[in-house]
Amino acid sequence: MLKSVLSTLAIAGTGALLATPALAQQVPEHGVFVLNSLLFLIGGVLVMFMACGFCMLETGLVRAKNTTMQLTKNVALFSIAAVGYYIIGYNLMYPLGSWSVDGVLSGVIGVAVLEAVGVAPEAADDLAYASTGSDYFFQLMFCAATASIVSGTIAERIKLWPFLVFTLILTALIYPFQASWKWGGGFLDEMGFLDFAGSTVVHSVGGWAALAGALVLGARTGKYRDGRVVPMPGANLPLATLGTFILWLGWFGFNGGSQLAMGTVSDVADVSRIFANTNAAAAGGAIAALILTQIFYKKVDLTMVLNGALAGLVSITAEPLTPTLGAATLIGGFGGVIVVFTVPFLDKLKIDDVVGAIPVHLVAGIWGTIAVALTNSDASFGTQIAGVVIVGAFTFIVSWIVWTVLKMTMGIRVTEEEELAGLDNAELGMEAYPEFSRQV
Amino acid sequence: MLKSVLSTLAIAGTGALLATPALAQQVPEHGVFVLNSLLFLIGGVLVMFMACGFCMLETGLVRAKNTTMQLTKNVALFSIAAVGYYIIGYNLMYPLGSWSVDGVLSGVIGVAVLEAVGVAPEAADDLAYASTGSDYFFQLMFCAATASIVSGTIAERIKLWPFLVFTLILTALIYPFQASWKWGGGFLDEMGFLDFAGSTVVHSVGGWAALAGALVLGARTGKYRDGRVVPMPGANLPLATLGTFILWLGWFGFNGGSQLAMGTVSDVADVSRIFANTNAAAAGGAIAALILTQIFYKKVDLTMVLNGALAGLVSITAEPLTPTLGAATLIGGFGGVIVVFTVPFLDKLKIDDVVGAIPVHLVAGIWGTIAVALTNSDASFGTQIAGVVIVGAFTFIVSWIVWTVLKMTMGIRVTEEEELAGLDNAELGMEAYPEFSRQV
Amino acid sequence: MLKSVLSTLAIAGTGALLATPALAQQVPEHGVFVLNSLLFLIGGVLVMFMACGFCMLETGLVRAKNTTMQLTKNVALFSIAAVGYYIIGYNLMYPLGSWSVDGVLSGVIGVAVLEAVGVAPEAADDLAYASTGSDYFFQLMFCAATASIVSGTIAERIKLWPFLVFTLILTALIYPFQASWKWGGGFLDEMGFLDFAGSTVVHSVGGWAALAGALVLGARTGKYRDGRVVPMPGANLPLATLGTFILWLGWFGFNGGSQLAMGTVSDVADVSRIFANTNAAAAGGAIAALILTQIFYKKVDLTMVLNGALAGLVSITAEPLTPTLGAATLIGGFGGVIVVFTVPFLDKLKIDDVVGAIPVHLVAGIWGTIAVALTNSDASFGTQIAGVVIVGAFTFIVSWIVWTVLKMTMGIRVTEEEELAGLDNAELGMEAYPEFSRQV
Repeated sequence: MLKSVLSTLAIAGTGALLATPALAQQVPEHGVFVLNSLLFLIGGVLVMFMACGFCMLETGLVRAKNTTMQLTKNVALFSIAAVGYYIIGYNLMYPLGSWSVDGVLSGVIGVAVLEAVGVAPEAADDLAYASTGSDYFFQLMFCAATASIVSGTIAERIKLWPFLVFTLILTALIYPFQASWKWGGGFLDEMGFLDFAGSTVVHSVGGWAALAGALVLGARTGKYRDGRVVPMPGANLPLATLGTFILWLGWFGFNGGSQLAMGTVSDVADVSRIFANTNAAAAGGAIAALILTQIFYKKVDLTMVLNGALAGLVSITAEPLTPTLGAATLIGGFGGVIVVFTVPFLDKLKIDDVVGAIPVHLVAGIWGTIAVALTNSDASFGTQIAGVVIVGAFTFIVSWIVWTVLKMTMGIRVTEEEELAGLDNAELGMEAYPEFSRQV
Repeated sequence: MLKSVLSTLAIAGTGALLATPALAQQVPEHGVFVLNSLLFLIGGVLVMFMACGFCMLETGLVRAKNTTMQLTKNVALFSIAAVGYYIIGYNLMYPLGSWSVDGVLSGVIGVAVLEAVGVAPEAADDLAYASTGSDYFFQLMFCAATASIVSGTIAERIKLWPFLVFTLILTALIYPFQASWKWGGGFLDEMGFLDFAGSTVVHSVGGWAALAGALVLGARTGKYRDGRVVPMPGANLPLATLGTFILWLGWFGFNGGSQLAMGTVSDVADVSRIFANTNAAAAGGAIAALILTQIFYKKVDLTMVLNGALAGLVSITAEPLTPTLGAATLIGGFGGVIVVFTVPFLDKLKIDDVVGAIPVHLVAGIWGTIAVALTNSDASFGTQIAGVVIVGAFTFIVSWIVWTVLKMTMGIRVTEEEELAGLDNAELGMEAYPEFSRQV
Repeated sequence: MLKSVLSTLAIAGTGALLATPALAQQVPEHGVFVLNSLLFLIGGVLVMFMACGFCMLETGLVRAKNTTMQLTKNVALFSIAAVGYYIIGYNLMYPLGSWSVDGVLSGVIGVAVLEAVGVAPEAADDLAYASTGSDYFFQLMFCAATASIVSGTIAERIKLWPFLVFTLILTALIYPFQASWKWGGGFLDEMGFLDFAGSTVVHSVGGWAALAGALVLGARTGKYRDGRVVPMPGANLPLATLGTFILWLGWFGFNGGSQLAMGTVSDVADVSRIFANTNAAAAGGAIAALILTQIFYKKVDLTMVLNGALAGLVSITAEPLTPTLGAATLIGGFGGVIVVFTVPFLDKLKIDDVVGAIPVHLVAGIWGTIAVALTNSDASFGTQIAGVVIVGAFTFIVSWIVWTVLKMTMGIRVTEEEELAGLDNAELGMEAYPEFSRQV
């Protein structure tokens, strides 16, 4: 942080001849490259913060006795994603193009490598795009988000280490492999499947992996008893609301950054549209859940409103650019409707999703992907549905196999006594709120 | 997210002739437009996060039994603002210029429309300014902030739905209408009234609407008893502090973004001054409250310090550019003084402001608006005071009428039993901290 | 916020002749200056948010009875840093260059002064650098971070006001004086000492000041009893985790902004590398602590994982640019190892560090500074160690003297009864969680 005055003096000292080059240096010759990279950095930072949002949301929605565990899982999964995506994922996702065996193998061989320090313009990968480091940073955060989705559904009963093994497989292999089909220029991309920022590629993939986990793992002890659904309310709703606001914030980076460019009038105006539409969809989802829970339950349900907003965000993620503000509000609003109806429906199926991640990320993700065909004339319903089914089948089956193998080898579930005592006590020996006594 | 390598290959495939255009594309021809839009996007995201800050601040300062309600109100108001401002507010605020009947009508007719997808430079609204989407996004967040201010003052006794109806009227009509007088180029702007980022247009408007609500609604049951002020301490001070820090953070977007441009040396240096001054004013407000509560109460009062920082921020909002760092510290510091003296004064008047929003946003907002004349030679005390009075009279009277009509129609206050039981139990049936027992 | 349409109309009204100048204005002639300033503003905002991160981390790790105090200290220290750095610190840090008596005196004389409002390009300090305001804003946040580090170690027993006096001395004098040796172009810089973003200049300085405070102050009553270490677990682990995520987020600004430039392909690619490496190091630190606590304690320890991530961040701060992603992961990972071994070691020495700031900021800061020589061929182990020793000796000795003088004059420690009752009760008379009863 050597201050400007010093460098000015240095320039002055070398004579007036340097004045002109110094001035010329002021015009950012490769401004588009700089601005695109900056978009990835800002977007990536916002998406990184979503890891915190997921953590707070999920932690607020579990009971006090499982709180330390939920925090631990969220910090650990984000860290493991950074390693898994670095060692295998990033190269698996991109260089293959279409998923030839050669491509996969070449992808698997190398770890991610960033541009050299002080790279010269002529040595940069692609001056019309952005720096490799910014691209890597941005993509990594998407991969990590997928893992964050899983941890909420299967909370309060899964052991720590098998969950982390699954996270490693998800972030190193499952996510990048299927993401290459669309974003690596693979066969889904060639088919004309559209998924701007990942309603399918990120959110539904997280949702499918979570669903497979919930099925293999089973419901929490006592959740479904005598045909009744026993409420197990979250211990800290301010935390859940904080998490939702942080996710809402991060989503501007998620969707806006996926424009991949902002160096021109057209690109920056598109990024701006995306910001406005993303906000509109979240608002639509929240309002839909607000009104519907008032109508159906006679009382507004805060957790539904929070999940409604998130479902609105997931719904607009596949196409945040082409809708008008009104259409975005409605697309997001329908996401909120989905939440209100899918949450009890899952309970009817005895699929125990602690935080509601399956309605939000999987069901609204499917809706958002199909809804692309409503506002983007390049999309066809058939192709969108095909993409949803292909990605879903792959992710669900592979995840189910991985969960099953983990169940048979490491075991994935704590004992019933441990579950009743709480994971914090059983697995970590550390209470999250040691001084706040429990109501009886 | 189709990666760079692929596009490079595509370009290479179409022949070397394309190389030169590709390189030319690197210079951002409309960089000022891009950078201005980027300022709005970054600023807008920061101001959006202020909705979370208000939510946490207010939630930390209410009692546990009203926590879920305060969370619900804050998520809902931000969502409703997005709809109200989209459907009516944005067009009401701008196209009229001065508030002719024609202008109002034409404004009311249309909903907000963003620039077309992939807009070409020659079709952009104004190449010297910024993209419509970025402007809309930024302005919307200011409108929503106004609504956030109201919810704190009238907490712990107002019903959910009438509050949301008021929010819709505030964000669709009241806020945009008066904002057009200054920021839409209306008569206040022509008079020479100065309000850089909205000490009056945003903060005092929120404060006036809150004051009207507090008067129509009355104090919380038991707050003023036998001539005493009964303390009703907030349940979660870490949350209140978190909210304050988030608001402090968001204020850099609030004030900095209001420069409306950062594509030149002059503009970006001004934005930088604003950032530094904004921080100085917040610090001044916090320190003033720190010292004064030590002197007057012999104990530092954290909630006063938090409100002192916020009052410092409100105070500098009308003119964050022209003061020196020292002047900004003092202007903010006087905001902190205001808080320490106005909070007990309101209690003396039996005006029950749960979180102290009236001292912070209304009184410090008036101070900040008048203080413009201290550092900006373009401002006159008379015009500043006139602006404060005109905006205040309009907002207070209209808000008072709306609150009164709501009171007579829907009813705005829960019953005394419901209030004692807590709004969470009475209106929502959901506890925020179900496992943490209450002290007796 | 006068909207674009109006300015467009105005331009149109003055005739077509203006069209060409208006268009020419679009090319950002001084784009490098704008982009560098923008980097400082974005970076500064992120580092500012670290004040919130420190506050939440520390507040989550103290017991409920000291919570309001920890919040108060963190808000107050950040505010005082803004004043101390403005009045003396900034000028002390820079103009002296090397620390001549003249330079110090001239530095002390003037307060920080920002560029004039609407500065013209030819009047800007240095067109190849960035605006003075953005530089000041960014540097101030580093100074404040140093103070935040101290407050955690000495929590739960120090009085409020002596702590704030120390903060003023630290931010106005100690930090800026030693920072000038490296970042003001002083003798450490001339020696070839490398510290990119401040593993030594910021983090170890905070750590040394904290260590001196902990020694002069002594351990908490009852912490070390009969040769045992009595656990005093933090009251709110979600808050501690939130703080860690916020710090992780802010660190992208801390390290990325320290590139000091992003207007060229080379600079923006370097900033991107730094973002990716910073994240990798944090992940490495967290994973190391995760695995080691499982191995050594048979249970994963969340507070160790959080501090592991932070230690990873501190470790990479001295050189976030030159390492590969793998090297960054390992450098950060070793930071996590340090935490797991240093925390119990400090307890063995009966040095009572409430939040673990000494392992994280001091020990990992030293490691990070020395590790520069592993990946940057411009660095020598000898010079790096010399820098660590010189800065450490200066900071520790001066801090020890200041703490000792404060102890002898104001007194720095509350009485034993006050400590047992909690600082909130004793010094502030305000509970942080008044409704949540304590477990017995």
